[in-house]
Amino acid sequence: MHYKDEQLNEEKVFKDPVHRYVHVKDQVIWDLIGAPEFQRLRRIKQLGTSYVTFHGAEHSRFNHSLGVYEIVRRIIANFEGRPDWNQEERLLCLCAALLHDLGHGPFSHSFEKVFKLDHEDFTREIVLGDTHINQILARVSADFPQKVADVINKTYQDKLVVSLISSQIDADRMDYLQRDAYFTGVSYGHFDMERILRVMRPTEDQVVVKESGMHAVEDYIMSRYQMYWQVYFHPVTRSAEVILSKILHRAKYLFDNNYQFALQPTHFLSFFEGEVSLSDYLRLDEPVVLYYFQMWADEEDPILSDLCERFSNRHLFKYIEFNPNLQMKEWMELYRLFSDAGIDPEYYLVIDSSSDLPYDFYRPGEEGERLPIHLLMPGGDLRELSRQSDIVEAISGKKRTDHKLYFPLDFVEALPDDSDLKKKMLTILFD
Amino acid sequence: MHYKDEQLNEEKVFKDPVHRYVHVKDQVIWDLIGAPEFQRLRRIKQLGTSYVTFHGAEHSRFNHSLGVYEIVRRIIANFEGRPDWNQEERLLCLCAALLHDLGHGPFSHSFEKVFKLDHEDFTREIVLGDTHINQILARVSADFPQKVADVINKTYQDKLVVSLISSQIDADRMDYLQRDAYFTGVSYGHFDMERILRVMRPTEDQVVVKESGMHAVEDYIMSRYQMYWQVYFHPVTRSAEVILSKILHRAKYLFDNNYQFALQPTHFLSFFEGEVSLSDYLRLDEPVVLYYFQMWADEEDPILSDLCERFSNRHLFKYIEFNPNLQMKEWMELYRLFSDAGIDPEYYLVIDSSSDLPYDFYRPGEEGERLPIHLLMPGGDLRELSRQSDIVEAISGKKRTDHKLYFPLDFVEALPDDSDLKKKMLTILFD
Amino acid sequence: MHYKDEQLNEEKVFKDPVHRYVHVKDQVIWDLIGAPEFQRLRRIKQLGTSYVTFHGAEHSRFNHSLGVYEIVRRIIANFEGRPDWNQEERLLCLCAALLHDLGHGPFSHSFEKVFKLDHEDFTREIVLGDTHINQILARVSADFPQKVADVINKTYQDKLVVSLISSQIDADRMDYLQRDAYFTGVSYGHFDMERILRVMRPTEDQVVVKESGMHAVEDYIMSRYQMYWQVYFHPVTRSAEVILSKILHRAKYLFDNNYQFALQPTHFLSFFEGEVSLSDYLRLDEPVVLYYFQMWADEEDPILSDLCERFSNRHLFKYIEFNPNLQMKEWMELYRLFSDAGIDPEYYLVIDSSSDLPYDFYRPGEEGERLPIHLLMPGGDLRELSRQSDIVEAISGKKRTDHKLYFPLDFVEALPDDSDLKKKMLTILFD
Amino acid sequence: MHYKDEQLNEEKVFKDPVHRYVHVKDQVIWDLIGAPEFQRLRRIKQLGTSYVTFHGAEHSRFNHSLGVYEIVRRIIANFEGRPDWNQEERLLCLCAALLHDLGHGPFSHSFEKVFKLDHEDFTREIVLGDTHINQILARVSADFPQKVADVINKTYQDKLVVSLISSQIDADRMDYLQRDAYFTGVSYGHFDMERILRVMRPTEDQVVVKESGMHAVEDYIMSRYQMYWQVYFHPVTRSAEVILSKILHRAKYLFDNNYQFALQPTHFLSFFEGEVSLSDYLRLDEPVVLYYFQMWADEEDPILSDLCERFSNRHLFKYIEFNPNLQMKEWMELYRLFSDAGIDPEYYLVIDSSSDLPYDFYRPGEEGERLPIHLLMPGGDLRELSRQSDIVEAISGKKRTDHKLYFPLDFVEALPDDSDLKKKMLTILFD
Repeated sequence: MHYKDEQLNEEKVFKDPVHRYVHVKDQVIWDLIGAPEFQRLRRIKQLGTSYVTFHGAEHSRFNHSLGVYEIVRRIIANFEGRPDWNQEERLLCLCAALLHDLGHGPFSHSFEKVFKLDHEDFTREIVLGDTHINQILARVSADFPQKVADVINKTYQDKLVVSLISSQIDADRMDYLQRDAYFTGVSYGHFDMERILRVMRPTEDQVVVKESGMHAVEDYIMSRYQMYWQVYFHPVTRSAEVILSKILHRAKYLFDNNYQFALQPTHFLSFFEGEVSLSDYLRLDEPVVLYYFQMWADEEDPILSDLCERFSNRHLFKYIEFNPNLQMKEWMELYRLFSDAGIDPEYYLVIDSSSDLPYDFYRPGEEGERLPIHLLMPGGDLRELSRQSDIVEAISGKKRTDHKLYFPLDFVEALPDDSDLKKKMLTILFD
Repeated sequence: MHYKDEQLNEEKVFKDPVHRYVHVKDQVIWDLIGAPEFQRLRRIKQLGTSYVTFHGAEHSRFNHSLGVYEIVRRIIANFEGRPDWNQEERLLCLCAALLHDLGHGPFSHSFEKVFKLDHEDFTREIVLGDTHINQILARVSADFPQKVADVINKTYQDKLVVSLISSQIDADRMDYLQRDAYFTGVSYGHFDMERILRVMRPTEDQVVVKESGMHAVEDYIMSRYQMYWQVYFHPVTRSAEVILSKILHRAKYLFDNNYQFALQPTHFLSFFEGEVSLSDYLRLDEPVVLYYFQMWADEEDPILSDLCERFSNRHLFKYIEFNPNLQMKEWMELYRLFSDAGIDPEYYLVIDSSSDLPYDFYRPGEEGERLPIHLLMPGGDLRELSRQSDIVEAISGKKRTDHKLYFPLDFVEALPDDSDLKKKMLTILFD
Repeated sequence: MHYKDEQLNEEKVFKDPVHRYVHVKDQVIWDLIGAPEFQRLRRIKQLGTSYVTFHGAEHSRFNHSLGVYEIVRRIIANFEGRPDWNQEERLLCLCAALLHDLGHGPFSHSFEKVFKLDHEDFTREIVLGDTHINQILARVSADFPQKVADVINKTYQDKLVVSLISSQIDADRMDYLQRDAYFTGVSYGHFDMERILRVMRPTEDQVVVKESGMHAVEDYIMSRYQMYWQVYFHPVTRSAEVILSKILHRAKYLFDNNYQFALQPTHFLSFFEGEVSLSDYLRLDEPVVLYYFQMWADEEDPILSDLCERFSNRHLFKYIEFNPNLQMKEWMELYRLFSDAGIDPEYYLVIDSSSDLPYDFYRPGEEGERLPIHLLMPGGDLRELSRQSDIVEAISGKKRTDHKLYFPLDFVEALPDDSDLKKKMLTILFD
Repeated sequence: MHYKDEQLNEEKVFKDPVHRYVHVKDQVIWDLIGAPEFQRLRRIKQLGTSYVTFHGAEHSRFNHSLGVYEIVRRIIANFEGRPDWNQEERLLCLCAALLHDLGHGPFSHSFEKVFKLDHEDFTREIVLGDTHINQILARVSADFPQKVADVINKTYQDKLVVSLISSQIDADRMDYLQRDAYFTGVSYGHFDMERILRVMRPTEDQVVVKESGMHAVEDYIMSRYQMYWQVYFHPVTRSAEVILSKILHRAKYLFDNNYQFALQPTHFLSFFEGEVSLSDYLRLDEPVVLYYFQMWADEEDPILSDLCERFSNRHLFKYIEFNPNLQMKEWMELYRLFSDAGIDPEYYLVIDSSSDLPYDFYRPGEEGERLPIHLLMPGGDLRELSRQSDIVEAISGKKRTDHKLYFPLDFVEALPDDSDLKKKMLTILFD
């Protein structure tokens, strides 16, 4: 039997707290899961720094990747025999689902911003490069790795296949909303996925949803909205993220300025130099980063050391609402005061805006957006969701930016009580 | 107001997936949670290597410690005003609950066995030594750290207090059964804790349970039984544990034999030398261990390198049922065959017995055991649970040992097909 | 001890699937629950005819009443010691919560419409009249029954007390949303009540919610929205409701026209005559109504008999979207066609509009509405929810009316295939 | 297409709180659900009088019947293509599952005991007699009704088919344990059905379970054990059952003695006379019984009237542990005292034994028992569960009988305080 059709003697199952069981029958899928590049996802947290706010959020990207695979598997099982569905694409869909996040590194958002990287490039490199993953995929057929890369890259010609992984209601999102809700323990994030799966229909260009399932989709959109504001954008999480970014900035700055690290930052060199090879990238998993942070907490550079201690011990910055556009004068004044007090404002006075964050709402039609959701009306027409749903119409297209100013309140408080700087700072910050 | 009575301005809550919310009002508790030694528990997985079997089991000891605290908090809230309950002990109970696992390191079981350590000693050292935790506790009163240590050590004079943390139905177990069930996703591990808490009563010597709650307690005992066999003793998890132990053994062996590590094993030195200081101990968290394993996978020593690769990539040993006592001859033969094939049996042919594992069933009366469960009968008498419950009687006292033989099947299979060694090995292993 | 302060020797608990346990300590509450007028609520379904659509929806008003009591009990437990909260009102709140639905009869909505009744009048009568409930309340104090009636009637002077039972986010609604979701099995209806309870604060005039709990309240509002459209207004349920109303209409019509019932409709006489005494009202519980429907299915009158058979056997009317205002001509034509075919359109061609239904959305400011929800802002100001929440603003104030036309498709289909009437009917109905 | 193969245009689903969705594709199943004899099950509570103890237990046999159908549907879906499974039996299995409880009447247990009936006879009569159900089944094939009856009757030749509906781990039990747990809200009754379904295998004679699923089956057995003692045998429920039986006894006694009922007991006549026709049986649903109880509460006969009032208003008998075999003397004395006090002991002093109740534990090998559970061992052998499982062995075969004495404590207390009878009664009852 050809490798692509090989089935395990017996179906394997993974016990999954969110989908109860993840079912694997294809030898290809089984082999991919066993590949080192995939096992590495166990060492990268799905929600980065969210665990500082929600202590349950310690689950890994491995978890999530299996979940996305499982959802696509269930969708496809329903598609069998329907018009517009090409059963030949089955394995491709499953592989792309499983591997779509393969290129993520630890604390991706900060690393990508600071070192100007894109995890999608690395996903592509892992799929196409000299890796175990690539070897497995290539056994299916010579062009299979490229196809998988194309689907993940959204350039594959069969848009229906792409839409399973990347649309406003794809398997990726359906998994992470439920999974992140489960592990954080919040009561948002629940929607009737079973019903949504049952009303999904393949069309030539995309997966659509029968109109009778609109309310379940509304519920999904609302879950998303609540998860973003309640979990993903949580200001305490962002505080940890701010510190993390500043650590990376500082380390790079020190390196650029020939600082002599007590511990040679081997794993980071190619990041600092802006030439990250795939193998360097794969080695820098989350334990390695945390190891460096522990070591750097003992470095002589007081900024690097302080920031690393803060990150490890959850000794976070405080925050206030602060809009630099509207509060330009206060901003400049604060900046000056911090400088005068010897608290380097580049590292210790940080504006963070939620719109910088890597999440998007339901905004149909915006450029660069994922495919909007279309309802399949009883007559057979398609209709964009926000035209049919009052609720979705109400929240879609609204971009709510939220600016916060982060700073180490403990440093400010440590200034002498009669210090003029201190008084002025506190006045601007809290009055 | 004295520090011990200080309350937060506003109650703080932690969103917890198991208990919904963890509530903190005492300043002391808040400060303890913020201490670096406590935050360190975030970097140690509650279930060690179980995540290789149950991918959801990635939660930390931080999680569990908060949970134990919360359960004790709820029990005590019910005790207020009851005879035999001394409200003065409240803060002591809460602190001991929160801190009872503080001395755990990463993969404790293997580390303790290989390096002859005991996490309870380190808990005591953290509580009594030069730590942030100690400073906070000492602000309550000079003898408070010692009291906390005594409760955790089960030597505190008020046995009722001790029994909250250490008995057959203590807050520790009630939390971990539910928590581990939640994160693994298994359907065992559920019991009606709310009911158990409501029927718990303080007596002079211990917490007891009203007889009307016996069925809820039976359910708890059954959950325990199922969790042990289904989760804690899972043979795949033990395979990872076996490899881990062998890594530690090998690294120590190499060190003892003056092997030159490419990376100086700074963090491990005092472990190898058998003189582990508190500060060394605290620094060796899970990311650090995993960092070393990544580095050691590139060491020249083939055994260390191979074992580390296996651990990181979940490239585990296979296992068969094997009782060395009954199968002495096969055992010796296999040992010889492995040696002959150049597969060092000290590292690659491992008997593991479940009875070695650090979990115990309900075995009232056995020496060294936690306090058995007593029912408070309608008339006021106490009665040991297994005398009243058929079910508990049926499973208590039974010690079921389960022996397995672990080995790298891939090594065996890699031997030439016509090799005599290979044939003999396979015959013994699988016939 | 005075009756109002009497406590049970031991707290009683009811196992409740929604709130886990309902706790009762007050003798007064215990006695009220045991009163025949309260036990009668077991014989009245909470959701009337919804069980024809959601087979799980068989729970009674007894269930719900205990649930509302329990929620108020928990709210009040949090209020103890807060400014603006008068602990003297505790028992009054609990009694009003428990009894607020006492006057409901079976299938209240239809009965009230057909016979021009109001269940609130009967609640008042039960509380103030010659009943076991009244005797129990009067033992608390002579004016206590009147106070309870006033709270339920929303005329009690302490508006804070009233708002616990009757506002846009009262215990009544929080219970029924969760309970109806639980029993129907739908995935809507979940929100984080525990959090809402924790952020509720008493003020002079009403219960308000701390702004930090806004998202939990949004979730509650969305649950409500979804429950109304997905469960309460479900068109199949309305079909059963339409038939029920028509049965009552027909029976009254027959009575008014001196029809000789085979079974004397003793229980219905005072309803037909428009003079319903309290004791007649209390005797007409749901089993009695269903008994009559069984008997009436054998009556000679073909309309009464047919409608009763339909109701008992879930042999419902079909429906189409139909707006009589916009489709006046079709309506008149259909009416004529049905008459011509001998299918009495008064009973068999029924327009039903969702806006007739006894549920309301969140529409702050509308006359006759329940109190809107106010957020307690960090500074201490109050702010109406829809001014702070985009989502709530988006859906509040929108009145969506949905018209449907119900008719017995089986009757139409039973007409001869070549019948002109039939063809015309089908054309209007389905083209 | 032949009726037996007819599929609905679109799959219909019922929202089910226990199994999430019940799926129907066969026209036959759809038609059966719509039949009046099946809809009648909505008017019969699944758990009889349990609602007096667990207020959530108001669900009907309709609910449960759909659930059993759904479980069998899922089991069969897994069986497709396996050896020993005959796909031709599919529809038969589904119909038998759906209809297996069709002959139940209201409060079956009491009715069957008092009037010497057997609901299984009525199931057979409905399936084979002049009913809508029979007409539908007969359209499948002339012998199909008989086959369905045989499966339900356990006399069908294909024992595998029988075992799906009637064995120690059949769909019937798996549904009711979960369903009754859900509606009562107790925490027992949970087990991993999804896993059990996945490890079920067809063999020639019966459904067996792969040995790897043994722990899930143990969990199911434990659920059963707990549900029986915590829910089904609850002494308060039995109190209501005792009163119900006594009502029926009294009514029959009065009828036999020519008592003139104010309301002619039309629906009961054939029950009193011992000649119950199918149509009489079907008409006596639960609302009709409750209607009579309301009317009989106003009868002149003081015993009938009192007992009916008690049942309607949950004014139950109290109970004590009492073993008539061991306490013969007390029993006789009490009997005499009650008689002397004018409290007819035939109705007001009732011994009830749990072993009389219609539930059985896991007792393999006992005559008349359902098929025991067999495990399919790795080698292919079958092994009876209790020989493999310590836990099951421990609880199987144990017959625990529990005797209680029920009586109206209020009557005793109403005797004059200085009455000698009263003192003696209270001494025997409570000392």
